[in-house]
Amino acid sequence: MTAAVTAAILVIGDEILSGRTKDRNIGYIAEYLAKIGIDLREARIVPDIEAEIVAAVNALRARYTYLFTTGGIGPTHDDITADCIAKAFGVPIGEDPRAVAMLRERYQPEDLNPARLRMARIPAGADLIDNPISKAPGFRLGNVIVMAGVPAIMQAMLDNVAPGLATGLRMLVATVPAPGLAEGVYAAGLAEVAAAHPAVSIGSYPAFQGGGFTNQIVLRAREAAALAAAEADVKALLGRLVMDGAPI
Amino acid sequence: MTAAVTAAILVIGDEILSGRTKDRNIGYIAEYLAKIGIDLREARIVPDIEAEIVAAVNALRARYTYLFTTGGIGPTHDDITADCIAKAFGVPIGEDPRAVAMLRERYQPEDLNPARLRMARIPAGADLIDNPISKAPGFRLGNVIVMAGVPAIMQAMLDNVAPGLATGLRMLVATVPAPGLAEGVYAAGLAEVAAAHPAVSIGSYPAFQGGGFTNQIVLRAREAAALAAAEADVKALLGRLVMDGAPI
Repeated sequence: MTAAVTAAILVIGDEILSGRTKDRNIGYIAEYLAKIGIDLREARIVPDIEAEIVAAVNALRARYTYLFTTGGIGPTHDDITADCIAKAFGVPIGEDPRAVAMLRERYQPEDLNPARLRMARIPAGADLIDNPISKAPGFRLGNVIVMAGVPAIMQAMLDNVAPGLATGLRMLVATVPAPGLAEGVYAAGLAEVAAAHPAVSIGSYPAFQGGGFTNQIVLRAREAAALAAAEADVKALLGRLVMDGAPI
Repeated sequence: MTAAVTAAILVIGDEILSGRTKDRNIGYIAEYLAKIGIDLREARIVPDIEAEIVAAVNALRARYTYLFTTGGIGPTHDDITADCIAKAFGVPIGEDPRAVAMLRERYQPEDLNPARLRMARIPAGADLIDNPISKAPGFRLGNVIVMAGVPAIMQAMLDNVAPGLATGLRMLVATVPAPGLAEGVYAAGLAEVAAAHPAVSIGSYPAFQGGGFTNQIVLRAREAAALAAAEADVKALLGRLVMDGAPI
């Protein structure tokens, strides 16, 4: 029996909280981690304020197997993530020769100015994460994985770091559509099914489209047999309700 | 001088953390609050677990003027938000006659079963928030505003609750595009501009499209004169760099 491997995401950036930029990284990372057997348990979005970032990093890294951060590792004054990670861990930070070498692949010596060299500031003890797009690396320090905020770069960094992560049993998922059945019609029966299958997490998700609800019941479990048994019970429940001419 | 009015968002739902559903509420609420003069300072996503929800509600409601929650107020067993809010506040919860009356507008008496009546469970002392789409109300208890997770319903609830909220000076925003200029080229100058205008928050936001970066500099301030002065300095900086034939 493998213990669950857990994770949190910390999105760093004023632009998300101001509504200017719509985050796309949380959804992407959530789906990615589910596929490789890491349970995402929490996500937070904080502004570009040192005390907020440090507090969130320390709260989340203590609690979960991994913490993934996005944002704040560019060359401008509002990019303070690397320094905050160093502060959270209580380790020094400085220009990392390996990171400088990566930046040299992209920039001519005369263009590698102090601002760009900030992107080579890496906390002591961190491993670098390749950035195939714009070279400035992410890094991993302990259980914290620090990635760019630009989605294409974050995705490439996640691909690079994922093979080195511990993973657990992948969560298996079954989706049972409940078209034409209202949640309130199957809720009592579904609660009974959920109680009868404690190893299976069962959720009911309404979506509102075209003036009506279309609902889906989603079952999640680590063991195929448990999942199949619960799925059969859900389908039997919905079938009975439809045969009974359940009101919608 | 009006004090800043602040807020946090708490998204409640396993389906967001599993990647099944991509959250669209945080971005919507963020933009909405910015427009009415409420500063969103933090957002969190937590699973459908009572202890997690209660802890997050209490941490966030203590810290910000308002806390907006989304999700978990439907009729199924995984909808536990109302009970968690009651627990967080230490108040009783039961079927609220006003909420029952709202549900009666939608459901015939024979269809208003115990599961649907769960949607009328409202913590003592809360004000209800109308739901024009499916009737089951949201509610406001103290500084916590509890809304549905389905975006169309959440948006209607936000429209209903917003007129009763305290608001501060709206944050004014100016965006200066920096096409053809790399962040690393203007970073040092931008840091100087930011330091010279402490009342203005200045961020640089790269986007990666078509194989290259297109950057925007975003300035935010509560006072138009301060914003305009900083914006002029940013434009002057970029103009000088372009005239100098700055490398990209």
